[in-house]
Amino acid sequence: MRIGILNGPNLNRLGTREPDTYGSETLEDIINGCVTFLAANGGTLQHVQTNHEGVAIDTIHQWGDESLDAIIINPGAWTHYSYAIRDAIASIQVPVLEVHLSNIHQREAFRHQSVTAAVCVGQIAGLGADGYKLALQYFIDKIRGGMENEGQ
Amino acid sequence: MRIGILNGPNLNRLGTREPDTYGSETLEDIINGCVTFLAANGGTLQHVQTNHEGVAIDTIHQWGDESLDAIIINPGAWTHYSYAIRDAIASIQVPVLEVHLSNIHQREAFRHQSVTAAVCVGQIAGLGADGYKLALQYFIDKIRGGMENEGQ
Amino acid sequence: MRIGILNGPNLNRLGTREPDTYGSETLEDIINGCVTFLAANGGTLQHVQTNHEGVAIDTIHQWGDESLDAIIINPGAWTHYSYAIRDAIASIQVPVLEVHLSNIHQREAFRHQSVTAAVCVGQIAGLGADGYKLALQYFIDKIRGGMENEGQ
Amino acid sequence: MRIGILNGPNLNRLGTREPDTYGSETLEDIINGCVTFLAANGGTLQHVQTNHEGVAIDTIHQWGDESLDAIIINPGAWTHYSYAIRDAIASIQVPVLEVHLSNIHQREAFRHQSVTAAVCVGQIAGLGADGYKLALQYFIDKIRGGMENEGQ
Amino acid sequence: MRIGILNGPNLNRLGTREPDTYGSETLEDIINGCVTFLAANGGTLQHVQTNHEGVAIDTIHQWGDESLDAIIINPGAWTHYSYAIRDAIASIQVPVLEVHLSNIHQREAFRHQSVTAAVCVGQIAGLGADGYKLALQYFIDKIRGGMENEGQ
Amino acid sequence: MRIGILNGPNLNRLGTREPDTYGSETLEDIINGCVTFLAANGGTLQHVQTNHEGVAIDTIHQWGDESLDAIIINPGAWTHYSYAIRDAIASIQVPVLEVHLSNIHQREAFRHQSVTAAVCVGQIAGLGADGYKLALQYFIDKIRGGMENEGQ
Amino acid sequence: MRIGILNGPNLNRLGTREPDTYGSETLEDIINGCVTFLAANGGTLQHVQTNHEGVAIDTIHQWGDESLDAIIINPGAWTHYSYAIRDAIASIQVPVLEVHLSNIHQREAFRHQSVTAAVCVGQIAGLGADGYKLALQYFIDKIRGGMENEGQ
Amino acid sequence: MRIGILNGPNLNRLGTREPDTYGSETLEDIINGCVTFLAANGGTLQHVQTNHEGVAIDTIHQWGDESLDAIIINPGAWTHYSYAIRDAIASIQVPVLEVHLSNIHQREAFRHQSVTAAVCVGQIAGLGADGYKLALQYFIDKIRGGMENEGQ
Amino acid sequence: MRIGILNGPNLNRLGTREPDTYGSETLEDIINGCVTFLAANGGTLQHVQTNHEGVAIDTIHQWGDESLDAIIINPGAWTHYSYAIRDAIASIQVPVLEVHLSNIHQREAFRHQSVTAAVCVGQIAGLGADGYKLALQYFIDKIRGGMENEGQ
Amino acid sequence: MRIGILNGPNLNRLGTREPDTYGSETLEDIINGCVTFLAANGGTLQHVQTNHEGVAIDTIHQWGDESLDAIIINPGAWTHYSYAIRDAIASIQVPVLEVHLSNIHQREAFRHQSVTAAVCVGQIAGLGADGYKLALQYFIDKIRGGMENEGQ
Amino acid sequence: MRIGILNGPNLNRLGTREPDTYGSETLEDIINGCVTFLAANGGTLQHVQTNHEGVAIDTIHQWGDESLDAIIINPGAWTHYSYAIRDAIASIQVPVLEVHLSNIHQREAFRHQSVTAAVCVGQIAGLGADGYKLALQYFIDKIRGGMENEGQ
Amino acid sequence: MRIGILNGPNLNRLGTREPDTYGSETLEDIINGCVTFLAANGGTLQHVQTNHEGVAIDTIHQWGDESLDAIIINPGAWTHYSYAIRDAIASIQVPVLEVHLSNIHQREAFRHQSVTAAVCVGQIAGLGADGYKLALQYFIDKIRGGMENEGQ
Repeated sequence: MRIGILNGPNLNRLGTREPDTYGSETLEDIINGCVTFLAANGGTLQHVQTNHEGVAIDTIHQWGDESLDAIIINPGAWTHYSYAIRDAIASIQVPVLEVHLSNIHQREAFRHQSVTAAVCVGQIAGLGADGYKLALQYFIDKIRGGMENEGQ
Repeated sequence: MRIGILNGPNLNRLGTREPDTYGSETLEDIINGCVTFLAANGGTLQHVQTNHEGVAIDTIHQWGDESLDAIIINPGAWTHYSYAIRDAIASIQVPVLEVHLSNIHQREAFRHQSVTAAVCVGQIAGLGADGYKLALQYFIDKIRGGMENEGQ
Repeated sequence: MRIGILNGPNLNRLGTREPDTYGSETLEDIINGCVTFLAANGGTLQHVQTNHEGVAIDTIHQWGDESLDAIIINPGAWTHYSYAIRDAIASIQVPVLEVHLSNIHQREAFRHQSVTAAVCVGQIAGLGADGYKLALQYFIDKIRGGMENEGQ
Repeated sequence: MRIGILNGPNLNRLGTREPDTYGSETLEDIINGCVTFLAANGGTLQHVQTNHEGVAIDTIHQWGDESLDAIIINPGAWTHYSYAIRDAIASIQVPVLEVHLSNIHQREAFRHQSVTAAVCVGQIAGLGADGYKLALQYFIDKIRGGMENEGQ
Repeated sequence: MRIGILNGPNLNRLGTREPDTYGSETLEDIINGCVTFLAANGGTLQHVQTNHEGVAIDTIHQWGDESLDAIIINPGAWTHYSYAIRDAIASIQVPVLEVHLSNIHQREAFRHQSVTAAVCVGQIAGLGADGYKLALQYFIDKIRGGMENEGQ
Repeated sequence: MRIGILNGPNLNRLGTREPDTYGSETLEDIINGCVTFLAANGGTLQHVQTNHEGVAIDTIHQWGDESLDAIIINPGAWTHYSYAIRDAIASIQVPVLEVHLSNIHQREAFRHQSVTAAVCVGQIAGLGADGYKLALQYFIDKIRGGMENEGQ
Repeated sequence: MRIGILNGPNLNRLGTREPDTYGSETLEDIINGCVTFLAANGGTLQHVQTNHEGVAIDTIHQWGDESLDAIIINPGAWTHYSYAIRDAIASIQVPVLEVHLSNIHQREAFRHQSVTAAVCVGQIAGLGADGYKLALQYFIDKIRGGMENEGQ
Repeated sequence: MRIGILNGPNLNRLGTREPDTYGSETLEDIINGCVTFLAANGGTLQHVQTNHEGVAIDTIHQWGDESLDAIIINPGAWTHYSYAIRDAIASIQVPVLEVHLSNIHQREAFRHQSVTAAVCVGQIAGLGADGYKLALQYFIDKIRGGMENEGQ
Repeated sequence: MRIGILNGPNLNRLGTREPDTYGSETLEDIINGCVTFLAANGGTLQHVQTNHEGVAIDTIHQWGDESLDAIIINPGAWTHYSYAIRDAIASIQVPVLEVHLSNIHQREAFRHQSVTAAVCVGQIAGLGADGYKLALQYFIDKIRGGMENEGQ
Repeated sequence: MRIGILNGPNLNRLGTREPDTYGSETLEDIINGCVTFLAANGGTLQHVQTNHEGVAIDTIHQWGDESLDAIIINPGAWTHYSYAIRDAIASIQVPVLEVHLSNIHQREAFRHQSVTAAVCVGQIAGLGADGYKLALQYFIDKIRGGMENEGQ
Repeated sequence: MRIGILNGPNLNRLGTREPDTYGSETLEDIINGCVTFLAANGGTLQHVQTNHEGVAIDTIHQWGDESLDAIIINPGAWTHYSYAIRDAIASIQVPVLEVHLSNIHQREAFRHQSVTAAVCVGQIAGLGADGYKLALQYFIDKIRGGMENEGQ
Repeated sequence: MRIGILNGPNLNRLGTREPDTYGSETLEDIINGCVTFLAANGGTLQHVQTNHEGVAIDTIHQWGDESLDAIIINPGAWTHYSYAIRDAIASIQVPVLEVHLSNIHQREAFRHQSVTAAVCVGQIAGLGADGYKLALQYFIDKIRGGMENEGQ
């Protein structure tokens, strides 16, 4: 069970950036927690954080070529305008789940719209770092369910 | 640990209604799964499904007065126009999490906007019945975390 | 041949409410005419008028479960905002035809848009009480046509 | 009792054009059915199909000058932009009823708006060729009602 | 002199709900004050608070049938989308005055528009519980003025 | 001095069509007045009224080729959508002045916008049949001014 | 107790201007009534009517500097575009209440929006000259309440 | 026969301001021409140019009180936002005709909309200084027509 | 190999009309070039230019009935509003390719939207008369490819 | 070197008005600082603050006639609607630079748009009183640069 | 004759990505075809595909500096939001032609608008890989035409 | 005193790119001027120009970590869509000032809106290369003012 987490622009600033909105936990803290959680469920985590749209697209392509079991993406501000990220997600077979730390519906109007969610399987928003863990839980259950089903 | 799940209009049709969009599991199946899951975590579940906006508002008020630990709401089509539901959520102290079975961002344009999400703690969409379970998991972790913290 | 007619909010005021717009015939007069007309064609009519959205949704569900042959709906003002009624119509197999007494295209701009018509088989507007009778005629012909076809 | 039916652009393609949307019946079939139906009710039908906006306007004017009892119009795609057709309808005393074969509310967004309906007595949409027959029925009843009233 | 006050959704939460916006006075306090004030002016007050749109419509109809002298309505969040409430107000002869506790023009953009005000005699907003009393004062003066005029 | 007047759709109905809006004078009356007025100023008038957009375009082209001194156009309802008429006007060297009988700014919202005015020298609206005469006067003065200037 | 009433453009025309909309009472009548009413409550009224935006702003500033107890403003048509009046109101400490004689929600669409209401304590609309008296009543009660409270 | 011409902001700059758009003739030149033209027709002209909205409103009121026979107004940039000027025009009985020197439909988008034209009898745009003379001609004919009619 | 070229309104003015935008080549020049080019590739060209929407629709129908191999259409200004042309294209089986001489994306905003492109196989814009030749080249290659494929 | 500073409505309230937004420095303080700064650079400052749009326009005209070297304008709330100020700026040859004390892009949405900036040489916003000094610096450098160039 | 082809984000996925929309040919196939085709016409092709906006901009700049004869660009999803790509194209002298494989007018609404087309010489859409070849053909003809012209 | 200047996409083309809009001075010229100016004031300048959004974000982060005293940013075309740049600016403590060479309010509509200005301290637009120098001056004064204040 291989799952990738892709974090977009400025998420490397977590813990320092606007702590009222995003909390004081760093991205390293969050990812370490995810690695541990996934390992406890028998899986391995790949993680990329990038402020470069092109790197994000390349990563999505690569993970699609490597047939990862699932991808969790937090596109950050790209959520609201990067149709290129959208097309990258649509170009692969791996299921992608969109996660946002903050409740984007409580913030500026431009954050209420996601151009990427329509090509993802779903979206989790507003649950902080727990959002990543719940996304992992979702895929772990799905993948196990699939394997069990195959076993029948 | 008491958690309420409130399902809005037409969710009683699950399993019969548009199975391509919503799956073939019935609401009773889903709620039974949630009861079991929450009981296994030492909590009790209250569930209300209603097609009446007024009943939904009354239920939110009552659960607010009873100081439930958390509420999971799937407002169904009300998501897109019922400012009365929004105000009901805003009128109580209990944290509310919005869940949608389908990925509302992949459907008709009017479903892309939620008038209730801004007063909830967050939103989970597109993960089917698993969305309820993940929402329960979120609140179980939060409440336990709180209790542990209180114990310190 | 069982057909249901569902009238939404304020249609109980017909004959007293804004007679310039809606005429002086009462709803009872109209429905009595429909009962007689349908009986003459060998069918039975069920009628519900309600000002409660929840009752309207429950009625649509019930008529769907009872496999009525057809439903005629005049959603009144709900036409313009009740996505919950829309979803209720979409959740059943029975064909639904939308009827409006007045020509909604000649009135306030908000009445020009129907959120329910897209999930109905069609719409008749502006023909007063005759609209109901024409809707009955449409379904009588369709149902008979179906039966004759089955007889072949 | 003289009634005119005016069919706008591309309706001559019925039966060949997009049969999934419009059915396989040809326009000639439909009009023949209408002629028979109206004759059985003691009336005579005039029919014009044209792809020329100017011819449509001229026809409306002529039928207004000839004081036909009623006009049924299917403006086709002109429904959505021809204010000239709208003004032509408004310029005569004869009542006009707008008919659409398909449910325009289920199709592209531009088809949801009619610029002509506001100057018609009403609109029937989505009932296929039956829409014309129901429109005839409406006018037959209205005209007979008027004659009977005059007889009193 | 009989006057009705109709309060819409969530107004039963007054005093507990968002006190920064709505103050700490309960609805019972406000209505008691209104009863006393109207009694001192020789009138009797009827009051209904409901979270059910259907009950609100039924109440408006009933008060219309009972020919109350005036109605004061605070439609709460329905103000912004319930065209059914609008039609109910338009369907009766009794004058209706819209009241809002908070200054809706200072709040979220969706609260700046009222779909009901156009069928009321006017609107009072932002004056807290005093808004109800001023509305009563307005109708007391109008009704007395009418009676005095009749006495001449 | 040769001037053309081009009248668009439905203007042949003047005097019979909506007299409250357009007055009871017929188009023939108006044009006869214009012929006389222009003759008195030493010019000859050409007049075309058509309900056919194509004829209007052909006429504009022809008058452009014949180098008329000026054109007065009342595009009727085409004013609001016919970009083809707009392009026809832009394709000739002859100055064109747009005239409307009624004050289009007092009527339906769709009549407030002209797609043709931007390629005309100007617009006269709301002055009834006098609008044509004033437009003639404008061109007579312009043309004479030009000739006098040439004489110097 | 000193209260100022500021009336904006064209309100000097009251009684002569569009009596169907604004009634036949003159502004002098209304203000005289207000002077008497306020004097009976132990207060003095200052009144300014102006058609000059600059004078209105200067007046608001002056009354702010003089620390009047309250201001009642009817900005007339400025309500819909004068952000300068808005800023003037926001620049003083005196509470300001917006009053409109007519029900602006029943009139042209541009009158449905107020750019000044957001910086006022509230708005009264549609109650004719009584609107001023009710506004005075509101402030009299507020100021007395304050004085009584101070007396305790 | 007394006619007033009211010119709004910046029209005193004519001849110096943007000659490509407005020509090199000064306002004084234009008005002198109008005085002469009207005198030749037995009338007297009053002229006011102002950059002050309040002065424009006062002037409209005064000319309304003095019962001038007609008013020609060029509101300049106020055309596009001054609802106060609009209300002033609506508050008097004298017919008002709107004139623009340039073709406002060829310029910036904000100039395509007039908030004042709806309360005028009509609008002349794009004909330069001739627009004023044609407006005078229109009123001269109308007034004479009225007088001649009275003489019959 | 039979291909039709259909040119819409005002394209007969090419070479005389706005040469800065459209070049000085006449339509006859362009079509002659196309005839030669297609003949050299073993095909025959049919050409219709019309300013009449109805003729354009009739032509599209006829070429559909005659099963031409392909159609190249330059709808001119109809591109931006003629849903009737759109429906005509959708009603035939022949592939249609939209061509514009000028780069419509560099011109007025209304020219940026095509209502016909969605039912064509594609669009070529901005390449002048070469656009027609490239469209021919595209179809020649496609048709030959098809024939070659059939030959296998 | 003569430079004018024109301050619009409510800027006379600086120091007292909303100090959180605009700071506590008074307008007199700011202008005195500008006078000193410009004098030190060998120039003289003219200053006008007005709440009257007409006075602002007259001032712009006058400074245009007097051929000042430059104008700095803070149009206050007029920035967002006064097309008359815009036209005044466009009517003179003197370069005008727009200055705002606060960062208008951080405030209400209506303040994000400037109708005057398009006819100015540029805009400085959000730098408080320093904005005026930087504007002076800009013009001093430009004027000196010009003079030096002339000296060569 | 040197021509560059620049392909934007996700075009490296051609053949694997959504083959229903984009076909099964790979980008390498397409470019190899273009190389051959251009070589046969005596030219050399440069090709860059990148998912990095910055690399695309750098490439455009470099090709501008190298004075390539022409550039063909398929900006992929950047077409709909990258004003930076637009400015890059505008910053060079080399003519650029925009190509899209799919008919963007048949797809999601956001794909109907191109922010880059306005600074290109034109656009080819919907013709699949043939679009590139036609674009090459266009430039080959243009460049040869230019050389021949120079030879005269 | 350390200040960073960050220039976005295409600004490396200055002097060659659209000189009518941006002038003929190169970016190197401008930055050299800034280095000299800041050095003369005792400070050191860091400069980055990049066409890569990711590099811009990384640079902002780095300068935030290095606690520069101030940043001047010209985001070029990113100004109008890069919410990622906006979030980067919001994620650091260093004050950022937005500068544009051209007056963006005079150019295409899409350039009138800045998505980054709201998180900057202010904006300078339209003053050419002087804009950078004025921005430096602003920060020099601020920083010195702070130091002086600390010295007191």
